[in-house]
Amino acid sequence: MATQGQVITCKAAVAWEPNKPLVIEDVEVAPPQAGEVRIKILFTALCHTDAYTWGGKDPEGLFPCILGHEAAGVVESVGEGVTEVQPGDHVIPCYQAECRECKFCKSGKTNLCGKVRGATGVGVMMTDRKSRFSVNGKPIYHFMGTSTFSQYTVVHDVSVAKIDPIAPLDKVCLLGCGVPTGLGAVWNTAKVEPGSTVAIFGLGTVGLAVAEGARTAGASRVIGIDIDSKKFDTAKNFGVTEFVNPKDHDKPIQQVLVDLTDGGVDYSFECIGNVQIMRAALECCHKGWGTSVIVGVAASGQEISTRPFQLVTGRVWKGTAFGGFKSRSQVPWLVEKYLKKEIKVDEYITHNMTLGEINEAFHLLHEGGCLRCVLSMDK
Amino acid sequence: MATQGQVITCKAAVAWEPNKPLVIEDVEVAPPQAGEVRIKILFTALCHTDAYTWGGKDPEGLFPCILGHEAAGVVESVGEGVTEVQPGDHVIPCYQAECRECKFCKSGKTNLCGKVRGATGVGVMMTDRKSRFSVNGKPIYHFMGTSTFSQYTVVHDVSVAKIDPIAPLDKVCLLGCGVPTGLGAVWNTAKVEPGSTVAIFGLGTVGLAVAEGARTAGASRVIGIDIDSKKFDTAKNFGVTEFVNPKDHDKPIQQVLVDLTDGGVDYSFECIGNVQIMRAALECCHKGWGTSVIVGVAASGQEISTRPFQLVTGRVWKGTAFGGFKSRSQVPWLVEKYLKKEIKVDEYITHNMTLGEINEAFHLLHEGGCLRCVLSMDK
Ligand SMILES: NC(=O)c1ccc[n+]([C@@H]2O[C@H](COP(=O)([O-])OP(=O)(O)OC[C@H]3O[C@@H](n4cnc5c(N)ncnc54)[C@H](O)[C@@H]3O)[C@@H](O)[C@H]2O)c1
Ligand SMILES: NC(=O)c1ccc[n+]([C@@H]2O[C@H](COP(=O)([O-])OP(=O)(O)OC[C@H]3O[C@@H](n4cnc5c(N)ncnc54)[C@H](O)[C@@H]3O)[C@@H](O)[C@H]2O)c1
Ligand SMILES: [Zn+2]
Ligand SMILES: [Zn+2]
Ligand SMILES: [Zn+2]
Ligand SMILES: [Zn+2]
Repeated sequence: MATQGQVITCKAAVAWEPNKPLVIEDVEVAPPQAGEVRIKILFTALCHTDAYTWGGKDPEGLFPCILGHEAAGVVESVGEGVTEVQPGDHVIPCYQAECRECKFCKSGKTNLCGKVRGATGVGVMMTDRKSRFSVNGKPIYHFMGTSTFSQYTVVHDVSVAKIDPIAPLDKVCLLGCGVPTGLGAVWNTAKVEPGSTVAIFGLGTVGLAVAEGARTAGASRVIGIDIDSKKFDTAKNFGVTEFVNPKDHDKPIQQVLVDLTDGGVDYSFECIGNVQIMRAALECCHKGWGTSVIVGVAASGQEISTRPFQLVTGRVWKGTAFGGFKSRSQVPWLVEKYLKKEIKVDEYITHNMTLGEINEAFHLLHEGGCLRCVLSMDK
Repeated sequence: MATQGQVITCKAAVAWEPNKPLVIEDVEVAPPQAGEVRIKILFTALCHTDAYTWGGKDPEGLFPCILGHEAAGVVESVGEGVTEVQPGDHVIPCYQAECRECKFCKSGKTNLCGKVRGATGVGVMMTDRKSRFSVNGKPIYHFMGTSTFSQYTVVHDVSVAKIDPIAPLDKVCLLGCGVPTGLGAVWNTAKVEPGSTVAIFGLGTVGLAVAEGARTAGASRVIGIDIDSKKFDTAKNFGVTEFVNPKDHDKPIQQVLVDLTDGGVDYSFECIGNVQIMRAALECCHKGWGTSVIVGVAASGQEISTRPFQLVTGRVWKGTAFGGFKSRSQVPWLVEKYLKKEIKVDEYITHNMTLGEINEAFHLLHEGGCLRCVLSMDK
C-alpha cells in the first residue's frame, strides 16, 4: 500500500487546551512501530469521557491531545510482529486493551488488562514512550490509547478488535464504549437473573443499554430514574417498564424506590456520574442481597459515602469499566449479536455529523435530545 | 417439669442505665407463650456488641435491659405450637433468627430472616409485644432476641438452634456469635478460593476466626494487621502467616499492603469497627477483583467513604452479619465441625468467670489479653 511505512498527513480535531474549541488540523501520523497498528478511522461517536477530559475535569488529562474512543475503521498498516490483524481488516479500537498475557488477563476475573496502561495513561505509545501524532513537528498526546478524532490513528495491537467486515461501521462504532458498558454492567458485573427488579439512574446511552441488558436478562421490573421526563418515551423501547422523576417527589429518591418495590430493588445501576446518586443507588437496594453497580464516572476528587450498616446488612457495592467485556475477544461477539438483531445499536444514534462539525457535536452532547452523535471522518 | 407454666425467679445481670455497672438482680421470667422457648442458660460469653450497647453507643439501645447473645443452655419449657425443640434439648440461642418462611429466608440469598425483627429490634416478644422479664413488676427489655445474661431467658422458637447434646456447652456457647461471624465472612460472604492472599484488620476473636476460615479455605498468604503486636503470637496458631503493625509504618496502611502484595490482596476483612480502616481494607484490595468484607460494627452515625474509581476499577465492597450463616440450620453443623476438630473453639477462651463477676469480665474485654471470657451462669 502506498502509505505503508510513510508518515500520513490527515485531518484531526486537536484539543490544544482544556475547554477551548477543538481545532481541525493537518496532523502528521507516524507509521506504526513494533506491536502497533495504524487505522483509518471512518466513523467516530462522542462520549462523555471525551467531554470530561476536554472540559479540563480530568486531572490526568494531557494537552494538546487528540480525543475520541468510540469508533470504527479499517487497518491501514501494521508494525513489526503484529499478526492478529492485517491491512484491510475492519476493526474497532478499544480503550480497554486485552493482551491475554498479563496477570489481569490471565486471572479470568477482570477485563482490566494492564499491558499498555503505563503508556496509554500518559498519552504515549509503549515502544518508545513517544506520540505518533504531531502538528508542525510539535507532538500531540494520544488519548485513552485510541485518539479516534483523527482520520488516521495508531494504537497498540492489543487494543484492536477485528470484526466482521459485513457490519456497518457507521453503526458498530458505538460498540467501542457506551453500549457494551451498559450491557456488560448487567450481564458481566451484576449478573442479573430472570425475575429481578432493576433500577437505572440516568437514561442516557449507558442507562438505556443497561435497560436493554436487563430486559434480555429477564428482569421483571426495570425502573428508569431521570430528572428529564422526556427520556421516558425512548426508554420504553429499551426495556424500561416504569419511570420515576426525582423532581416529582419530596422524599429522598432511595426512599421512593424502597417504597415502590416493597423493600428495595435487586440490582441498581448508576449511569450519571453523580456521587450523591451513587449513594442513593446503593441505598435503594434490598437488604440481604441488593447489588449496586457504579457505571458513571464522577468528577475527580469526589467521594462516595454510606453507613457501613448498609453493607453489613447484605448490600453489595461494585463498579464496572467497559462493562467487564474483554475487548478483543468480546467486541467481535457483540458485533455478531448486532448483526443477528439481538442487540440494538442504530437506536442510540440521534445525530450524524462530520469531523468538521465536531464542536457543534459536543454542544449537542449536553442537550437532552442527543444520545449518540456519529461523525463521518472523511468530510 | 415443676417450673413449666410458672414464673421463674432467677439471677440476671440487669443494665439499668447505659455505662453504669450491671446489677445482679432477682428477675422474674414469665413462661413462654405461643412460638416461644424458655431456656436455662448455662454458659454465656461476652461480645463487643454487648459492650457497645451497654456503653450507650447504640442509639437504638433500650434500658433497662438484659444483654448477652453468645451462649448455650438447655430448653426448660416451650410455648404452644413449638415443635422443633422440647424440654431438655441442648440449644444455642441465635440473635439472627431463621424462620424458613419469610422472603429473606426463602430467597436463598441471605441469612437475615425478617420474621421476628420487628419485635427483637425493640426489646419485646412478637406475640404480645411485651417483655418476659421483670424486676419487682417493672418490665426489663430483651436484647437482640437472646438476653443471655440471665439464668433463664425466653426467645422465639425461630431463634433456637438445637445441637448435639454431647457438645460441651462451656465451649460451644462461642458458636453463638464471634466465631461463626469470622468463619462465615470467609466461607459464605467472600468465598475465598485456594491460593488467595488475604488481609485481616484486627486480630480479636472475629479476626482470628477469619484467619482460621482463610486457612481452611486454602489461602496462601494470610496477613494479619493489628496495632497490638502481642496479637501476632496467638494469631499464628489461627493461620496468620505474616503480621503488619500500622504503627511501624509511615505510609498509609493500604499502601503498605499494596506494596507487600504486588498490587493488593485478593480479599480483605475489617474486624475492628473503624470506618477509616474499612476504607483502608477496601483500598488495599487488588484492582480488577479484590473484595473487601466489613465485619466490624462502627459507631453509630459514622460513614465509610472512598473514591468511586476504586469500585469502577473492579474492587467489590461487601459486609456480613453472623457470617452469612443460617442460624438454626448451620449452627448445629458448626457444632459438629467442632466435635470433629475441624474448627477451633476452645482456643478463643482466655478467661472463665461467673455471672456474679460480669462487671470485671467487661473490663477484661477491653484489655489486649482477652479474647473471649465465658461466664458460668450457675454461680
Ligand atoms: N464505567 C465505564 O466504563 C463508562 C463507560 C462509558 C461511560 N461512562 C459514564 O457513564 C455515564 C453516563 O454516560 P451517558 O453517555 O449515558 O451520559 P448521558 O449524559 O447521556 O446520560 C446521563 C443521564 O442522566 C440524567 N441525569 C443527570 N443528573 C441526574 C440526576 N441527578 N438524577 C437522575 N438523572 C440524572 C440526565 O438527564 C441524562 O439522561 C457518564 O458518567 C459516563 O462518563 C462510564
Ligand atoms: N458483623 C457481625 O455480625 C459481627 C458479629 C460479631 C462481632 N462483630 C464486630 O466485629 C468487631 C471485632 O470483634 P472482636 O470481638 O474480634 O473485637 P476485639 O476488640 O477483640 O478485636 C479488635 C482488634 O482490633 C485491633 N485494633 C483496634 N484498632 C485498630 C486499628 N486502628 N488498626 C489495627 N488494629 C486495630 C485491636 O487491637 C484488637 O486486637 C467488632 O466491631 C464487633 O462488634 C460483628
Ligand atoms: Zn466512552
Ligand atoms: Zn492483559
Ligand atoms: Zn456478638
Ligand atoms: Zn425468615
